[in-house]
Order: sequence, then structure tokens, then C-alpha cells
Amino acid sequence: MCAKLKTAVLGASGYSGLELTRILGRHPRLEKPVLLQREGSDGARDLAEVFPQLSGNGGYPMAGLCWSELKRQGVQLLFLATPHEASRSLVPQAIYQGLRVIDLSGAWRLKQAQHRAIYSFDDEDQANAGGLTEQAVYGLPELNGDCIMQAQLVANPGCYATSVILALAPLVSGEVIDREWGIISDSKSGVSGAGKAPSAHTHFVSVADNLSAYSVFTHRHVGEMVEQLGLSDGELTFTPHLLPIPRGILSTIYVRLTRAMQAAEVEMIYRDCYASKPWVWVFAPPKLPQVQYSLHSNFCDLGFCLAGDGRRLVLVSCLDNLLKGAAGQAVQNMNLMYGWDEREGLQ
Amino acid sequence: MCAKLKTAVLGASGYSGLELTRILGRHPRLEKPVLLQREGSDGARDLAEVFPQLSGNGGYPMAGLCWSELKRQGVQLLFLATPHEASRSLVPQAIYQGLRVIDLSGAWRLKQAQHRAIYSFDDEDQANAGGLTEQAVYGLPELNGDCIMQAQLVANPGCYATSVILALAPLVSGEVIDREWGIISDSKSGVSGAGKAPSAHTHFVSVADNLSAYSVFTHRHVGEMVEQLGLSDGELTFTPHLLPIPRGILSTIYVRLTRAMQAAEVEMIYRDCYASKPWVWVFAPPKLPQVQYSLHSNFCDLGFCLAGDGRRLVLVSCLDNLLKGAAGQAVQNMNLMYGWDEREGLQ
Amino acid sequence: MCAKLKTAVLGASGYSGLELTRILGRHPRLEKPVLLQREGSDGARDLAEVFPQLSGNGGYPMAGLCWSELKRQGVQLLFLATPHEASRSLVPQAIYQGLRVIDLSGAWRLKQAQHRAIYSFDDEDQANAGGLTEQAVYGLPELNGDCIMQAQLVANPGCYATSVILALAPLVSGEVIDREWGIISDSKSGVSGAGKAPSAHTHFVSVADNLSAYSVFTHRHVGEMVEQLGLSDGELTFTPHLLPIPRGILSTIYVRLTRAMQAAEVEMIYRDCYASKPWVWVFAPPKLPQVQYSLHSNFCDLGFCLAGDGRRLVLVSCLDNLLKGAAGQAVQNMNLMYGWDEREGLQ
Amino acid sequence: MCAKLKTAVLGASGYSGLELTRILGRHPRLEKPVLLQREGSDGARDLAEVFPQLSGNGGYPMAGLCWSELKRQGVQLLFLATPHEASRSLVPQAIYQGLRVIDLSGAWRLKQAQHRAIYSFDDEDQANAGGLTEQAVYGLPELNGDCIMQAQLVANPGCYATSVILALAPLVSGEVIDREWGIISDSKSGVSGAGKAPSAHTHFVSVADNLSAYSVFTHRHVGEMVEQLGLSDGELTFTPHLLPIPRGILSTIYVRLTRAMQAAEVEMIYRDCYASKPWVWVFAPPKLPQVQYSLHSNFCDLGFCLAGDGRRLVLVSCLDNLLKGAAGQAVQNMNLMYGWDEREGLQ
Repeated sequence: MCAKLKTAVLGASGYSGLELTRILGRHPRLEKPVLLQREGSDGARDLAEVFPQLSGNGGYPMAGLCWSELKRQGVQLLFLATPHEASRSLVPQAIYQGLRVIDLSGAWRLKQAQHRAIYSFDDEDQANAGGLTEQAVYGLPELNGDCIMQAQLVANPGCYATSVILALAPLVSGEVIDREWGIISDSKSGVSGAGKAPSAHTHFVSVADNLSAYSVFTHRHVGEMVEQLGLSDGELTFTPHLLPIPRGILSTIYVRLTRAMQAAEVEMIYRDCYASKPWVWVFAPPKLPQVQYSLHSNFCDLGFCLAGDGRRLVLVSCLDNLLKGAAGQAVQNMNLMYGWDEREGLQ
Repeated sequence: MCAKLKTAVLGASGYSGLELTRILGRHPRLEKPVLLQREGSDGARDLAEVFPQLSGNGGYPMAGLCWSELKRQGVQLLFLATPHEASRSLVPQAIYQGLRVIDLSGAWRLKQAQHRAIYSFDDEDQANAGGLTEQAVYGLPELNGDCIMQAQLVANPGCYATSVILALAPLVSGEVIDREWGIISDSKSGVSGAGKAPSAHTHFVSVADNLSAYSVFTHRHVGEMVEQLGLSDGELTFTPHLLPIPRGILSTIYVRLTRAMQAAEVEMIYRDCYASKPWVWVFAPPKLPQVQYSLHSNFCDLGFCLAGDGRRLVLVSCLDNLLKGAAGQAVQNMNLMYGWDEREGLQ
Repeated sequence: MCAKLKTAVLGASGYSGLELTRILGRHPRLEKPVLLQREGSDGARDLAEVFPQLSGNGGYPMAGLCWSELKRQGVQLLFLATPHEASRSLVPQAIYQGLRVIDLSGAWRLKQAQHRAIYSFDDEDQANAGGLTEQAVYGLPELNGDCIMQAQLVANPGCYATSVILALAPLVSGEVIDREWGIISDSKSGVSGAGKAPSAHTHFVSVADNLSAYSVFTHRHVGEMVEQLGLSDGELTFTPHLLPIPRGILSTIYVRLTRAMQAAEVEMIYRDCYASKPWVWVFAPPKLPQVQYSLHSNFCDLGFCLAGDGRRLVLVSCLDNLLKGAAGQAVQNMNLMYGWDEREGLQ
Repeated sequence: MCAKLKTAVLGASGYSGLELTRILGRHPRLEKPVLLQREGSDGARDLAEVFPQLSGNGGYPMAGLCWSELKRQGVQLLFLATPHEASRSLVPQAIYQGLRVIDLSGAWRLKQAQHRAIYSFDDEDQANAGGLTEQAVYGLPELNGDCIMQAQLVANPGCYATSVILALAPLVSGEVIDREWGIISDSKSGVSGAGKAPSAHTHFVSVADNLSAYSVFTHRHVGEMVEQLGLSDGELTFTPHLLPIPRGILSTIYVRLTRAMQAAEVEMIYRDCYASKPWVWVFAPPKLPQVQYSLHSNFCDLGFCLAGDGRRLVLVSCLDNLLKGAAGQAVQNMNLMYGWDEREGLQ
């Protein structure tokens, strides 16, 4: 058997970082991951201080980031679970050190300047990025598997974006959507999607017994969706909502078909598209996915409902924002990058 | 000062019935309401046995329904918080007894046979209804105030329907919606909307940490929406979802405008329409209503977000399904029927 | 009819402040309350900016605190819903201005220095307080009604303390508790009890799907309980827990009786004690209060369960921490201070 | 490597059954488990019809129970996740067929007739049990490991009982508890502990935003606790509460020590007792376990807080009621019965 791969995680003390650390820790192809702390973080020396739920599973020591130390330890792959500003400056350094990188932030996902603008990456930043923007592979394994295998830098998709793109890709590539009518995604996410930093918006009393829409027309993930699906701006209307649950995403997506179809025909488009994809599950109508079904798994669950007119189609897409929407997908990408089964370590 | 009105409530032991009992109990124009039990109910003799939260407020005795006894007590107005089958058979009797009736069920809301079909009201039933179907006034005070004042039978609207109709009515009557494009309402409701009967779907473990779509294209409230807004079938796509909260509705509604407009112009349409309506509140953009804001109030809160193209419009409509969506609206209707201020007893 | 009382609220933008503002706004004996902002607060000029749920009810303008302006407006009673440090310095000024004061913080509740120490009030502070510590009346209307009527300064009790003291007072004064065995209160509170400031502990993801004990043996409210019940330190073991709900407290309290009793005898002790108290409700065994029953009301609900041995007694006490545990009780105190019915404005 | 063990699960369609099926399905020592349906169940032919979250993981066919078929398939170990009445009649048959049995119900946990009475097992039932009552081993691995290894029938402990016994056993066996003072366990459980059958008590609206105590002094699990800890009846006061969360238990336990101790001494008692037990985790004071930390794991987390007097001790014990409180512990028992590492399949 081959030697095991040595990986490192920077930013393990966030919600995605915790999930990533857990999955990597039991992945059969890996050595125990090296956990790295960002500068200016709270100074915990073991991840179990931050997440006591890890206490019983042995130590999770964290160290500061030091490139030469990473090299000494033989680390070959670096996961970044850091804010996009940090990722934007760290990734070029890591690539320069010869590491392969999977970045969970939004820093490297976007190819078009007008979409990057929403992250405030300006021309100077783009110059500093030195071509990495173009090299970075958008890490949606179901669509970009071949490129991911070869990638040195994988930009792990956003959670909302994963839920929307996987639901729409078969229809868009099948050219059965009335593009002029447009696409609407009414998406709802649990609170962990907003990150661990305390704020008025994530206070329990603000979220419980509530539902709210936010960032209508302006959410950062729209750029990814539009670019990956090959849509033009304004074609997709995306409305995110904050759900009173810790984790999980459900997107209800509305499209019109170019011609009246049967449900069986629509189902076949999905089954053909995802036949060999282990982490997309297509529900046979009239069954629809629910948030609960995909929690604590790496599945993106897809279902749909077709109106009697055969034209109006409602898609429902569910996933766990911390797994298929973040850490699980990152591991799925690693599996592809190293030629392993996509399911390895994720079951 | 005039003599106080004597009312009765049949079906007080449901969620809407509880709210109704509470509001009527403190309404300044009313005598203490007579509480009536449906045949075959659980036999509680006081509503506080069913809802211990009433214990400290004095007795809430319940009796069986007896028309002559109601007459003897001087009851003039009957609220029915009963299943639609029960309302369908009880209302003609009540009207025959000379009572005015506000029915909270779906039994009398629909004018068109194809919509009534979903309640399984057949021709025989329609014959028995003896013209009441036509006489019944759809009790949405903001739209039908004049008819409600005169009505002997008010069909209190559905909770989802109230949230959707109030959001759309100003735009539909203003003829600014691209009707060919259609209308989409992605609505989300708390669990009390599903009633008090225990079921697999309302089990805490099924609902908590979850979100699910249901009855896509087939929900009973679509008929009300379509009839009241003057739409044709198929013009409105309605997707209800079950939220992990006890009460509250948020509808996110998608329309296209016939021409590019400014947000201020859209806002003005709403303000003009609801200027004198005390129970509709229009949020000034970019503020949007949230479920929490309308809980425990009789408000329907409306807000919107207009895309940069001036055409794509996202409406957000929130209300408390047990108040503006049921018991509160019923009391608002009563206020109109007896010439009182619409706010009476609801603040 | 007498002239209406003019009141002011400082600190309306917290959870208790919101409830207080709502109750005062509809209290029949009061003019519209003056809302005051603390220095350094977020600068909202209307409370509806902080709490959009107030939007539909007319304006709630807030101004900075200015004693002469208060005098000019004819304010006679000031509510302080401020942190204890602020209350400690503001109350002497308010009293000096001739105002009556109801302070919702912990600043003036404690008579014994060893208990005040936990609030870090030192000797210098005590000197500055100039006798007010002694004058302040602990505002638990069921126990201290006579003193409250005359009080210039009422120290409104803590939420946990209210729930525990009301449950225990009848038994302690009846001398039926085995004091040597001690008293245990295992209390559970919703998150609003922790205040509105965002923190890691109030983040939705930290609280949802969770329960945690905190401040075991060291919670600030123990001092109030011990002083008001006349216990010695160490006699009461108090363990608070954080519940995944927005509001509500349930205390499960364990005592031993000095002699074997019947349930009816215990019930009689409670009924005698609270016969004329409108805001304490005693459940007849075997019924027990639940958090839900007291939410959005000013009731403290009490119930108990007696073991077959007639000695081991479990008490259950529930209330809404923002009403009977804060704002509602403050209004109840005001009603006493001005000779009105205790229920006025609270139903 | 040895041949893999063939197991069967009767009652997979309950919450514990689902967890058990998942764990057994990925246990490295086992063949795929045979899933059996109880007579009169809902007739699903695949467990994924009941739990759509299983859909993506391949088939979970269920068959009716047939002893000869089980023999033909080579099943050696049967898990019963059935109601206690069913277990009481099925276990003797299974033992007669030569199967080893792990029963998750309360049917075989109790040795003393007065405790069994609460399950309504009468003399005739006891006669039918034919000595199995005595043979059954109480399956708490940390206490009864040796007996479990040899057992033909393991009675898997109750969820509350596991949480309370593991917290108390070290102190009871160390004889440091003031037994005359007694023991109080104030326990709180998520709703899955009440089972999957819909009822008024498990309706979302009844549970959400609520907390309630129930079965005070009379809960069925008290018998187990008393028997396993060697207490006399009345020594333990146990109050269960229903938490608004899907899963998880937290027990807050109150004892008095026979002499004043230091926290370090208490901690040592726990560490000594559980040094070699992989599924009990002892928190170093002042840290305390929380429900969240143990969810989705097989850990029982223990912590404590000692009063300044060195005598009053508050213990906090947390576990996932469906894992360490049911399915996880059943697998831990299986591991012992077959001589495997206790952690096998549970990480």
C-alpha cells in the first residue's frame, strides 16, 4: 500500500474547519492532519479547547503557520478554512512552496472581474494573484472532475452555489430551460452558514422562531452560480433566507421548460447526468428531499415537481452546508486530486 | 353606550380557537363569549383543561351546541373554528337560525366549482348549500370591506392566502405585473398552520432541524388566491414549506413588472393602496419584514426588493398565521360587520 | 378621573425595555412614556429602528437623558432597564431629582455586603450610595407589597430569583422545610435572560440542540434568594441552565418536609399564601406548570409533586423572564406604588 | 481474519433502530445486518421508505420475522428494538432458537419484582420468562463488562439510566456519598427519547419554546438506577424533563459527600474508575459537559462542580440518548460479547 498523504488545515477552529478535521482524522488514506492556527486567533493550543466535543478522541494540537515547518513535516496538501481575505494572500505563498491547495473561501472561485468586485478584490490584488485566478479550478466534482484531478489550486464552492448549480446543471446543459423566462432560486440556510463570529444576526433570540430574507439580488454566491452555469447576469434571481436551524440548506428553484415534458423525461435527464456521481441523489417524484435527510452526510439530494402543464418545474435541492457545502466537498475534491474513490473517508 | 354584543365560538379547543377566545375575552364591545364544543370532541368542560395557560384568567366553560340555547342566551354572531366538513354542514343551520357567521375554515371561501373540488364538495353538497356559496363574503377586510359590513356569512381567508393576496393585490389592480411571466409564491409556515392533530408530519423530531416543501402545485389555498386576485389557473405557482417554528408565515413572491420602475414608485403603489388600512404595514426599502416582527400581532407586514433592471421584483410578506391569518382577521371582520374601528380589541 | 401619570424608560432598547415600552404604552393610567437612550448607545432615534416589530404602532422617539428636561415634561416615575453599573450611578441622581425609580438591574437588590461583592460594589461605591441601599425596597409584590407602596426606590427582582422565591416563600414562612437538609433549585432559562449583546454563548449554533449548566454555586441571583427567604449562605444550591428557547424559566426545586404531609395540606399552604395575589397561579396536583403556559403573561405558575413518603417534595415554578421576571413585575410594582389594581395594564 | 458475524435487527423503523442499522452497516466485523419487521408494522419493504435519509446508501430490505429463515441465513445475534411487551414475548423464543440477544427495551432489565411491576409484568409473565429474568445481564459495559462477555441475553440499559448510573457509580462504590441525605437527579431529554409515535406530547407546537417536567417520582427507569447502584427505594429522587431538542440527555445530579473533599480528589475517583473505559469522558473542572458535545457520539460525558464547603457536589452527565443511551451502547455490548475492542464500529 502507498504511503499515506500528509495534509494540513489552516482555520480548523471554524465550523467547516471542525468538520474537516473530523473527516480527515478518520480518512484511511491520510496521516493525522497538521492543524494550523491563523495569526491573531484566540490562541487555543488544542482544537479541543475550542470544540470540547473533540475531547475524548485524543489530542488536536494546533501550531502557528510556518512554511518551512510544513515542508519538514512532509505536508503536501493544504486546506484553507479561512476568510477570503486571508486566503487571497496565503494561497500564492502556499503554491510557491509547492503545496497543492484546497481553499474553502470565496477568494479563488470567480473568473470574471465583475463578480470578484463584490469581494473587493481590485486590480492590484489581481496583479498580486499572478495568474492564479485563471489556474484555480472550481471544485465541484460532479462538473469539473477532470480539471480537479490535475489542479494545484482548487477553489471549493460556496454552500448555496453547490445546492443551486447541482440542481440546475443537467437542465442547463440539456438546453431544456426557457432562458428568457429566467431562473429563480429561493434558498434557505441554517445559521452555521453565517460563520461562528457572534453578531446581532446570529444571536439565538434573533434567529429562533424567525425566518428572514437577506442580500436579495446581491449575495456573493450568485457570481459562482452564473459563471459555472454559463448564465448571463440578471438571468438568475437568488434570494437567501436564514432558517432557525444550525445547519442545512434547501433551495427551491423555479424554471420554465422550453417545451411541455413528462416527469419521467425530466427524471431521466437527472439520472443520466448523475448516474456515476456517488454524492448526488435523485429522488423519484413525487418524493422530495428535506433538509433533515442530507444532514451529517455528503449528499446533495435533488427532487422536482412538474406542473400539469408540463412547463412549470419546481426543483428542490438539499445538502448539509458544512459537508457537501464545505468540508465534505473539500475531501471529495482531495479524493479526486489523488486518484482515490470519491467516497473515501466520507461514509 | 350600546349594549354589548353576544358571540359564540364553536371549536375553541384548536389553535385558532384559543387565540379567538383570548381576543374576544378582552374585546371592549363584547360580552364574554359562549364557548361551544363540537360533538365527538374530547369532552373537556372548560377550555383551561385543554389549554392550561388559561387557568389563571377565570373560567372558560364549554357546552355542547344547541341552537335554542344560543337563541336564549342572545347570541347574534357565531364564529366557527371547525374543520371545513363541519362548517359546510353547520353554517346553513346557523344562518337559518338568524345568526351572522364568521367561518374560519375553507368551506365557504371559493366561488368557482373547480376550486371547490379540492375540498371534495360535490354537486349534492352544493345543492344543500342553497345559495350560501354565492352569498358568502370572502373576509379579507383590506379588499372587501364594504361587502363584509353587510355580510351575514363571512368566509375568513386562509393564512397563506392572506399573506399572498395582500402582497399582490396592489400590483395586480395597478396592472403593473407581467401576467404572462406569471407569479411565484415561495411560502413558509410554522407548524400551528397544520393544526393540532398529532401526526408523523407534526412530530417534533420530524420538524425540528428541518425544512420541507409540500403540496407543490396542489395546495388548497391556491384557489382562494387565484379567485381573489382575478388570476387564471396556472398563472400562480405556489410552494408551501413547513418551518421549524410554532407560528408565523413568510411568503417570498416573485413577479416581473411590465415596465422598468423605480423602488419609490413601487413603494407608492403600496402606500396608496394601504394608506387607510390599519393592519397592513409597508416597510420602506431596503428594510424587509421578518417572521418575528409580526408574531403576536394582527399585522400583515409587506416589503420588497427591486432588481437593478427595474423589472424583477421580490416581495416579502409576513404575518402570524393564528392572528392575521386566522383569529385576528376574524375579529377584524367582526369589527367591520358591526361598524366598529378595525383595530378594536386587537391591540 | 385623575390625571395620568408620566413615566420614562431608560434602556428601552434591550429585551426587557421593549416589553416595558409595550406594556406602558397601553397602560390605561399612563401618558405615553418618555423613552431615553443611554449615552454611548447605538444612536437610534426611534425604538422602531431597533425593534421593527414596533413599526406599525406609531412612533417611539428616543432622546438622551436630561434631568431638567424630564422635570419639564412632568415625569414622576423612572424605569431603569440598564446594566447594574449604570443603575448604580444613575439612581442616586434620579432620587435627588425627586423621581420615584424602579430599577430592573441587580444594583439595588442586595442588603448584605457579602452578596453585593459579586457585583463588585466596593466600600467607596457603598459610601456614594448614601443610604439608598437600605432604603431600596425589593420589589416582589407578593412578599413586600406594603413597603413597595411607599417606596421611592424599588429594586425589581431578578428573573431566576422571582421564580425561586415565590415557590419557596410559603414553605419557608410556614416552617415546614427541613432547613438542615437544604434546598436545591435546578433552574432553566431561555436565552433572552442573557441579554441582547452578541457573544459566543448566545450564538444560535451554540444554543440550539443544546442544554448547558453554568455558574454553578456562583450565580448572582443567589444572594437575592437567600436574603429574601432568610436563608443562610450554603443552605441553597442553585444551578442555572441555558435552554434552547428565546424566553421562559422553569425551576425544579427540591426540599424535604420536616414531617410527612399530604398533598392537600401542601396545596393549602400555597393557596392560603397566594389567595389574594393575582399574578401567582397554583396548579392543583398532579398538574404541573410548563414554560409555555406562562409565556407572554405576568403569571408565576406554581405546582408540586409529593413523594409517597410525604417528605420529599418537588416544586415546579414557571414564568416569563421578560414579564413576571422583569418588565411585567416592574409594572406590577408601579401599580402598587400608585395605589392601582395590581393587574392594571398587564392583562 | 475470522468470518464476519451475521446479525439481525427487529424494529429498525424506530429512532434507535435507524441508528443501530447505520452503525451495524459500517461495522468492520459484521456482514450486512438482516432487517426484520414487526407484525402489524406499516408494511414498508425497505427501511429507506421510512427513513429517506438512507436512500443514497443502497438497499435496506426488511422482511417478516421467521426463525427458520434466520437460522438459514446464519444469524447468530439478534437486536430487538421493540416495545417491551414485544420483547418480553420474543426473547424466550429467540433464546430457544440458540440466538444471542441484545434487547433495547425495558423488558429484561429489572431483577426485583417491585420494579418490574411498573411494566405490568405479572406472575404469569414471570413464570413464562422461565428464568431468563435472572440470566439477563444488564448491559452497562463500564460496570458489567465481564458478565456481558458471557451473556446470552443482554438487557440494554435505558437512556436516562445510563446517564445517571455512570455519573453516580464511582461515588457510590467509593462510599463517599451521604446516603441518608439521598440523591437527586434532575434529568432533561430530547424528544426522540419519547419514541416515534405521534402524540399530543410530541407535537412540535407542544414541545417547541417549552420545557416540562413529567413522571416525577414514577419514571420507569428509576428501577434500573436503584438496582444497579444498590440503592434502596426512596433514596433516589428522579425528575425527567422534556427538552425542545430532537436528541440528547443532560442529567444534573445532586449529592452530599460524607466528608469535605477537594475537587482534585473527586476528579481522581472518576479518573480511576473510568481510566480504561473508552466511552466515558471525564471533564476536568471547572469545565462541564453540554448536550451538544456528546451528540452523534457514543460518549457519556461527565463533569462536576464542588461547593466551597467541600460537601455539596453537583454532577453533570451528558449523552446522546440514541447512541450511548441506546443503539451505540448495544453495539458496545456486542463488541464485548464477541471479544472485540469496545470502540469497534463506533468511531
